[in-house]
Amino acid sequence: MHTPQIVSLKNERIKAASSLKTGKGRRESGLLLLEGHKLIAEALAAGLTLREVFYSEEDALALSGAGRELATSVSLEVLQRLCDTESPQGVVATAVQPELRLDALKQGGRYLLLENLQNAGNVGNILRSAEAFGVDGVLFCSAAVDLMSPKVLRGSMGSALRMPTAFYRDVGEAVRAIRKAGLPLWASVLREDAVLLTDFRGGSGVMAVGNEGAGLTQELIAESDALVFIPMKGKTESLSAPTAAAVLMWELWGRSPD
Amino acid sequence: MHTPQIVSLKNERIKAASSLKTGKGRRESGLLLLEGHKLIAEALAAGLTLREVFYSEEDALALSGAGRELATSVSLEVLQRLCDTESPQGVVATAVQPELRLDALKQGGRYLLLENLQNAGNVGNILRSAEAFGVDGVLFCSAAVDLMSPKVLRGSMGSALRMPTAFYRDVGEAVRAIRKAGLPLWASVLREDAVLLTDFRGGSGVMAVGNEGAGLTQELIAESDALVFIPMKGKTESLSAPTAAAVLMWELWGRSPD
Repeated sequence: MHTPQIVSLKNERIKAASSLKTGKGRRESGLLLLEGHKLIAEALAAGLTLREVFYSEEDALALSGAGRELATSVSLEVLQRLCDTESPQGVVATAVQPELRLDALKQGGRYLLLENLQNAGNVGNILRSAEAFGVDGVLFCSAAVDLMSPKVLRGSMGSALRMPTAFYRDVGEAVRAIRKAGLPLWASVLREDAVLLTDFRGGSGVMAVGNEGAGLTQELIAESDALVFIPMKGKTESLSAPTAAAVLMWELWGRSPD
Repeated sequence: MHTPQIVSLKNERIKAASSLKTGKGRRESGLLLLEGHKLIAEALAAGLTLREVFYSEEDALALSGAGRELATSVSLEVLQRLCDTESPQGVVATAVQPELRLDALKQGGRYLLLENLQNAGNVGNILRSAEAFGVDGVLFCSAAVDLMSPKVLRGSMGSALRMPTAFYRDVGEAVRAIRKAGLPLWASVLREDAVLLTDFRGGSGVMAVGNEGAGLTQELIAESDALVFIPMKGKTESLSAPTAAAVLMWELWGRSPD
């Protein structure tokens, strides 16, 4: 029913959307890919501008009002190609990436610092906990994670579209930003000589969590104002990075009602 | 240098070990597969009996004393075939599965109940947190998870080899076991009318956590003695199942020094 020109135009748009599965495609376009009704709704609620909406002809679900005029019907096969997950959720959209970079840390702020953390699923999970437990921003040090990747977006359940973040090349750059805001830096460590988390007074500051295998670097630990230890029972030697981060944020900030 | 008979015997053993990557292979043999030095050391510390040890000829790492007499040198390719992970860790062992099934729950015990949770990575992570926060056992309801699968073993960092567990076919069976031990059942829910976790007195009892998408079933909630809610800030609607379970266990049991 379509003229060849229209078909070709549609294919171009599908190809452009598909390129957003890669970091390069996202960087060059400034766009991101949203899989499923839930993430699209989160993006709209966060004020993102949708560019395209692709939905499967087989999908009986009604499209939400906001995206209807942008909607393009595609086959389930095309939808699968646009999806990072194995089971496409009936609808995929493209949207303009949000601007969430922190220019500077604020006095009195509460921040989580992740050193050398790169696993997208873990980072997504941590962003979600950070939002739930009242953190003002998540800082990344010595590792570049693309927070607009489908995996982080999914794992964060939309928190990646709302949580302010900052990236620092190395420990030195991170510490300068933290000192400039007059914030203390706390290091989460597996050392019995550290302060027990239950004895530690939180409030305003930066809590640093390292990567699961290696922990925090000696360089970061040396710059810290306090070392904090999550007491553990049984024969467990450590917690997963998302669990350690969640328990720290809950205890320092999530438990208090403000 | 080997006679055909020896080569064939070795191939048989490799094939038998490889079958332990499947649930069927593990059920039929009562054995499990341990990838890497760390898990093998955890298994030995937990009192498991090793049956075979395969190590890569290319691996320069010395084998730990306990497994040396069982060691068979294999190619890196064979080791890869025995591994569930993409990058083999130089050594793989087979061992007799531990007997960790709880016959009955104990009065005064502290248990976590997982309803409809099947993701092996999540379950492994939760077993690890459960051990760290002083839980007496993890109960599973309405979903069979093979706790001896490579993914659970890895995710639990060995806690699956130590944590007592029980499986119940349905809510009715679980509730009968809980009532028999005189334990209260608490349900973690996303309802503002529930008791705030920070206002909740823990102690002895069973904390139930549902699957991330669906939450706990109405049937289980109806049987509960209390509904508990983890207070959240921001626009987060929920936490991941491992994060929710960790925060609940930390708050109820992990924080206290006993």
